[in-house]
Amino acid sequence: MSYRKRTCTCGELREGDIGKNVTLTGWVDTRRDLGGVVFIDVRDRYGKTQVVFNPQTNEQVHKLAGELRSEYVISVSGKVERRPDGTENANLPTGQIDVMADDVTILNRADTPPFPIEDDVDVNEETRLQYRYLDLRRSPMQQNLITRHKMYLITRKYFDELNFVEVETPVLMKSTPEGARDYLVPSRVHRGKFYALPQSPQTYKQILMVAGMDRYFQIVKCFRDEDLRADRQPEFTQIDVEMSFVEEEDVRKVVEGLIVRFFKEIKGVEIPTPFPRLTYKEAVETYGSDKPDTRFGLEFTNINELIKDSGFKVFSEVVKKDGVVAGFVAPDCGNFTRNQLDVLTDFAKSLGAGGLVWMRVTDAGVETPSEKFLGKETVNAIQRRMQAKTGDLILLISDSWSKAYTILGGLRLEMARRLNLIDESKNDLLWVTDFPMFEFNEQEKRYVAMHHPFTSPNGEDASLLDTGPLKARARAYDLVLNGNEIAGGSIRIHDRALQSKVFNLLGINNEQAKKKFGFMLDAFRYGAPPHGGIAFGFDRICMLLTGEKSIRDVIAFPKTTSAISLMDDSPSEVDPAQLKELHIKIV
Amino acid sequence: MSYRKRTCTCGELREGDIGKNVTLTGWVDTRRDLGGVVFIDVRDRYGKTQVVFNPQTNEQVHKLAGELRSEYVISVSGKVERRPDGTENANLPTGQIDVMADDVTILNRADTPPFPIEDDVDVNEETRLQYRYLDLRRSPMQQNLITRHKMYLITRKYFDELNFVEVETPVLMKSTPEGARDYLVPSRVHRGKFYALPQSPQTYKQILMVAGMDRYFQIVKCFRDEDLRADRQPEFTQIDVEMSFVEEEDVRKVVEGLIVRFFKEIKGVEIPTPFPRLTYKEAVETYGSDKPDTRFGLEFTNINELIKDSGFKVFSEVVKKDGVVAGFVAPDCGNFTRNQLDVLTDFAKSLGAGGLVWMRVTDAGVETPSEKFLGKETVNAIQRRMQAKTGDLILLISDSWSKAYTILGGLRLEMARRLNLIDESKNDLLWVTDFPMFEFNEQEKRYVAMHHPFTSPNGEDASLLDTGPLKARARAYDLVLNGNEIAGGSIRIHDRALQSKVFNLLGINNEQAKKKFGFMLDAFRYGAPPHGGIAFGFDRICMLLTGEKSIRDVIAFPKTTSAISLMDDSPSEVDPAQLKELHIKIV
Repeated sequence: MSYRKRTCTCGELREGDIGKNVTLTGWVDTRRDLGGVVFIDVRDRYGKTQVVFNPQTNEQVHKLAGELRSEYVISVSGKVERRPDGTENANLPTGQIDVMADDVTILNRADTPPFPIEDDVDVNEETRLQYRYLDLRRSPMQQNLITRHKMYLITRKYFDELNFVEVETPVLMKSTPEGARDYLVPSRVHRGKFYALPQSPQTYKQILMVAGMDRYFQIVKCFRDEDLRADRQPEFTQIDVEMSFVEEEDVRKVVEGLIVRFFKEIKGVEIPTPFPRLTYKEAVETYGSDKPDTRFGLEFTNINELIKDSGFKVFSEVVKKDGVVAGFVAPDCGNFTRNQLDVLTDFAKSLGAGGLVWMRVTDAGVETPSEKFLGKETVNAIQRRMQAKTGDLILLISDSWSKAYTILGGLRLEMARRLNLIDESKNDLLWVTDFPMFEFNEQEKRYVAMHHPFTSPNGEDASLLDTGPLKARARAYDLVLNGNEIAGGSIRIHDRALQSKVFNLLGINNEQAKKKFGFMLDAFRYGAPPHGGIAFGFDRICMLLTGEKSIRDVIAFPKTTSAISLMDDSPSEVDPAQLKELHIKIV
Repeated sequence: MSYRKRTCTCGELREGDIGKNVTLTGWVDTRRDLGGVVFIDVRDRYGKTQVVFNPQTNEQVHKLAGELRSEYVISVSGKVERRPDGTENANLPTGQIDVMADDVTILNRADTPPFPIEDDVDVNEETRLQYRYLDLRRSPMQQNLITRHKMYLITRKYFDELNFVEVETPVLMKSTPEGARDYLVPSRVHRGKFYALPQSPQTYKQILMVAGMDRYFQIVKCFRDEDLRADRQPEFTQIDVEMSFVEEEDVRKVVEGLIVRFFKEIKGVEIPTPFPRLTYKEAVETYGSDKPDTRFGLEFTNINELIKDSGFKVFSEVVKKDGVVAGFVAPDCGNFTRNQLDVLTDFAKSLGAGGLVWMRVTDAGVETPSEKFLGKETVNAIQRRMQAKTGDLILLISDSWSKAYTILGGLRLEMARRLNLIDESKNDLLWVTDFPMFEFNEQEKRYVAMHHPFTSPNGEDASLLDTGPLKARARAYDLVLNGNEIAGGSIRIHDRALQSKVFNLLGINNEQAKKKFGFMLDAFRYGAPPHGGIAFGFDRICMLLTGEKSIRDVIAFPKTTSAISLMDDSPSEVDPAQLKELHIKIV
């Protein structure tokens, strides 16, 4: 098919172009017929331009305009003219001009789309995903992909300036499941053997440090076969970074520089550095989370000292068992009704609380059902310690350290939402540091790595690996943006003996360690430098910078929460001959 | 471990730094002990610096130097001094200075490596791959990875400047094997169903065009489960490009711009544009290949006209059956002995030739055993037609069109090698165009797509799809560099009916087409623009630009030709519990 190729895009014609003869190619966006003159907005990725089909300009072409329907693909030519007075469209960059059509070719016809190609569409996400080629025609989705593209460029330019080298690591690698499940790929050539898709290029980037690459980064796809939560995808994109001869400060400085650029170049916002920091302990004890949203207060106060000797057994027993009584002040909620407080109590219970102690601070003093157990004096002391003012509401939880703070953390977020305390214009960045090395997994009755098995313990805590592993802190750090973890990293172990010891603590015996990670332990024999790094969740950062609510809106072809691609219906059944070649059978 | 962090790299100290106190971190490269003074080259990615341990500078530090061995990782500090007259090393950028050590910390020790970390190592590739972390410490390998990194940046900057958007397409996709085998990934959540790894993002990039993205590119991993040849990898990297509203010229212009930049920025070489072009037919009939090496001549001459009526039945029968008698002149080979000619004949037979006709052009005229069949007159006519001079050798093959030229192509390359005709300094780029749409696969007794099923036929050949599909030419183009195919692309079909027809010709019936490619056919209902694109073999271009002989030398962690990673021993056996979760069993 021969047609006139565009001389400009649908987004670029301005007053200065008046008088020019141009050709546009694109999609028919809207079509109006006004007294025999047809007005069509032609749309492409760059914008929209109004084209006028006037029988007085060209009768034959005007007739052809009658055939045009939404989403037809056309090539249209004509002269650029100033729009008649009063018909300019100030909302459209091309709104000062019309193109007076004197030639048009239909390049392709279109059925009526299942939903209109508009910025806001009232259609369920399943339909959008099934017809992704139409969903991606919508301008907000195109802008998301373009922003994502810009973020790739910003990232790569930034790391290149700092002498980092982007290295591609294998997608077909060894299966070493630790934490999440691997996606496996059966080998045809080696019967009974499998590759795994990388959960992260962790081992490769450390190998690159041993190889002397010094500063590595990669924007890379990673894979986890998890039961998906709302904002997870089976495949996701990570900015992966590793550096040699560094300590925490060096890594954090590099990371802060990138985040500053993202905000500046994508949103035009200046972010001050260095970012604030909290230890894991501080974060949990102040906000009830290791990824606290610091855009609002509702900070916790521990009142163990005030109530440990009180007659209220529920409280004093908890303190005796190394537990915690703590809470926060909900400002101006002293007027909550009993009913509202019951709802709040139920919410706390849904988070696992045994109960919720509340205290309303009124003109007449503190009102609380707990007064009969605590006594007026203790109640007043709590009010003073928590700096609750008249009209405020105090909420208290008593439980083990981790449970009490986790419940309070959930309650804090809920209250912030109800009270509309979250300032959406804020961009609060925060480092959380000094994570524990290990957690104890009750189900598997063993220690599991809080970060991953390659994380170095704090130097001063090294001896705790022998005496009290759960107390050992790691040289790990997470970066949090408005309550979302957007990056996590650590200084790694580079000593073979220490790495073996940590494997052993994690229940990986020497034989298993050799089988799974023998190549790393071998590499550590030949001069491994001190090194550390970090990995960013690219999809999530992109979601936060574009202001979207779902990572699926910043991924061109995402999968559903049940890991299905609705557009092309994958995963799907395959030819039995394919399975035969792979030496596998479905059971 | 606490240690002094570097103040500079091992590659940057110059005369202007004399007098400064510096700290270097890196690997012990070489160590010499000269009259009690120890000289150590410290190495990192950026270079080498000579450090001098003199007992007169610091006795304790000098003693520690005695412990240092090759590949130990150290931090070393001292003052920069001018090297004594006559000891400068002009081959080393830091060769004007020494660092006089007054502090050293051993950051890690090293076993003796299995091969020395030197630019040229005499060790087999298996050992290099097993100890890849040591192999990658060698400067040529590091430079290859850095060049590769630069190529990523050049590519991305170039396409960004031209308004292309990089979009990540899924790695877990639908299995639609056409041509090569898919790697499959069993789904845990959907029993009996599988994802496939992309052989290329072909369908996605076309969908992006339907989605109006207009100009797409991606540097992307692709996967083919093939029986590997020497320069193939199960996973390889591709520069993938697609454009809307374009014809061949538009795509080629974009491609040429990128290639010009690669040569200019990586090798400092100017490549003239536009690149030369040959049709598929011309390439085969002149060079015996659809990816001809044009750095040397040995072009073919068809002599059908001269011999079709000759009494030599071997020749005339071939012509009658639409075959070809053709050959080329090997300059200055008229003195080849009968023995040499026998070896050449055997080589031609190994390529599938029935025989090889040779003619030596001597002072006494043309000598050939075929004279008794052809007659002196025809022999002389052949010499004239082929412009063979005294001292030259004429080589002729007679067979079917495709066999004759394929054999001649192999013979031509072999003669070029023997005669050392290939000028390695040349960078010959060439477009090959007008490929046939289809080949006939004798085994499967069906047409297969020469490029892929989405390639558009030449407009003027559309009717041949009904009357003679093998004669139909495609709107396909390959880019060839020095006899290597480095990119291949086409203008695509954007019409649903034409796409269905091509599927049918390829033996994909409507039901199968719907199952495999239904989403694409559906997408074509809703306004698909005319579009086309190309894909570059990134690894191969990188290999050619770095002057390496194997793509494995420009890939950080390659696999062997039997698809094994020798470093980490993958593929490997997995835990039976993993297979159980995936509902599969090894047979």
